[in-house]
Amino acid sequence: MSVSYVCQKTAAQVDDLLMGKFGYLLPQLVEQAGLAAAVAAARVFPRSNRAIILAGPGNNGADGLVAARHLKLFGYECSVVYPRRSSNPIMQSLQQQCEVFSIDILPDLPRPLPSSNTFFVDAFFGFSFKPPVRSPFDSILKEVVDSKLPVISVDIPSGWDVETGPPTDGTTVLQPEALISLSVPKSGVKSFSGRHFLGGRFLPPGLLPVLSISIPPYPGEEMIQELPRNDSSL
Amino acid sequence: MSVSYVCQKTAAQVDDLLMGKFGYLLPQLVEQAGLAAAVAAARVFPRSNRAIILAGPGNNGADGLVAARHLKLFGYECSVVYPRRSSNPIMQSLQQQCEVFSIDILPDLPRPLPSSNTFFVDAFFGFSFKPPVRSPFDSILKEVVDSKLPVISVDIPSGWDVETGPPTDGTTVLQPEALISLSVPKSGVKSFSGRHFLGGRFLPPGLLPVLSISIPPYPGEEMIQELPRNDSSL
Repeated sequence: MSVSYVCQKTAAQVDDLLMGKFGYLLPQLVEQAGLAAAVAAARVFPRSNRAIILAGPGNNGADGLVAARHLKLFGYECSVVYPRRSSNPIMQSLQQQCEVFSIDILPDLPRPLPSSNTFFVDAFFGFSFKPPVRSPFDSILKEVVDSKLPVISVDIPSGWDVETGPPTDGTTVLQPEALISLSVPKSGVKSFSGRHFLGGRFLPPGLLPVLSISIPPYPGEEMIQELPRNDSSL
Repeated sequence: MSVSYVCQKTAAQVDDLLMGKFGYLLPQLVEQAGLAAAVAAARVFPRSNRAIILAGPGNNGADGLVAARHLKLFGYECSVVYPRRSSNPIMQSLQQQCEVFSIDILPDLPRPLPSSNTFFVDAFFGFSFKPPVRSPFDSILKEVVDSKLPVISVDIPSGWDVETGPPTDGTTVLQPEALISLSVPKSGVKSFSGRHFLGGRFLPPGLLPVLSISIPPYPGEEMIQELPRNDSSL
């Protein structure tokens, strides 16, 4: 079963369709995306007991805030690194939910960083990211990479170009252990060789051909599916 | 592990907390509730291929509209019986999503009713229901009971008193095969002897004691859990 990889423009068009013609409300989409990210993280890191969620100021960060709440429900100790708090009412509600769940919301990485049993959920930037990574996200990402703790990225590894992939300008390259693409994978992750999940079971299957998008069918009642792993020798 | 059964007033207070102090947005709650209902239905009726969803005009109906979309994604043929369309913008969005998923939305039961391989999802009335059942819901429920097709109810079997249970005034008594309670079961279903699921994994576990609510822990990343079956001889 073939998998489409879409460019940034098509990803934006899919998002417009979801909240336009398809009638979805943003809180429905972030709830499902964040839940899918949390489920994927729990499958990848079943033996960890702590998650540090990196939340950006946009919709990718919204997915991260939702994922933090679900990971806490799944039994992980959670804290959220949320350096640029958004004034968007939906983001504020998601933040409030985390606070009610006793999830610490921090402006920077906790120090000292845990050395083990901990993973990062990278939800800094999503499909609308344009390089370069700016302060303070650049130094946080560098510290994340230097920590050698494992990472699962949401939609796109933060700092990667949505279309061309890992940065080649000498800046820090995040190489996450796992990735969960939402709706449909983006061109920039075509070469990603870690565990690759697909989540965001939003698209009407009957409309996929119209959208020229091909994604494998989800199994049963699953919110996520694992895509075949890239052979990095190709 | 003990399970609380709450009265109508407490159920309303929990709902107020969810959307007040806890900061949830209604579309997040209905998305999770509807997903949980769809997952429970798929577990109870794995060999059916058709679902008829009964959607009321309120939040219980909203859960039903969401469940219809997920059941369609799970591979069931779906139609929604939605006799009193709400002008609420969230309900209209949920209806639009069903239409995009090619789910028929009907004012009354499809006729002739299928005789097999079909189940009902009863999402007419939820925890704020006050008897009696009014037209046209009364005659639809009677036809559902007469059809002998199996039913899964969402939150409370429609027509049951939220506190005292099945109606005793001679009106039709819906006896669903399965029930999915949301957040916490209501007093009226204490005697329910079918398969009983709990969904709506919204409550912060740390606050359950403050709320004097006891629910068993959900397993792993599950959106639902099955409660021990009542021994109807008790």
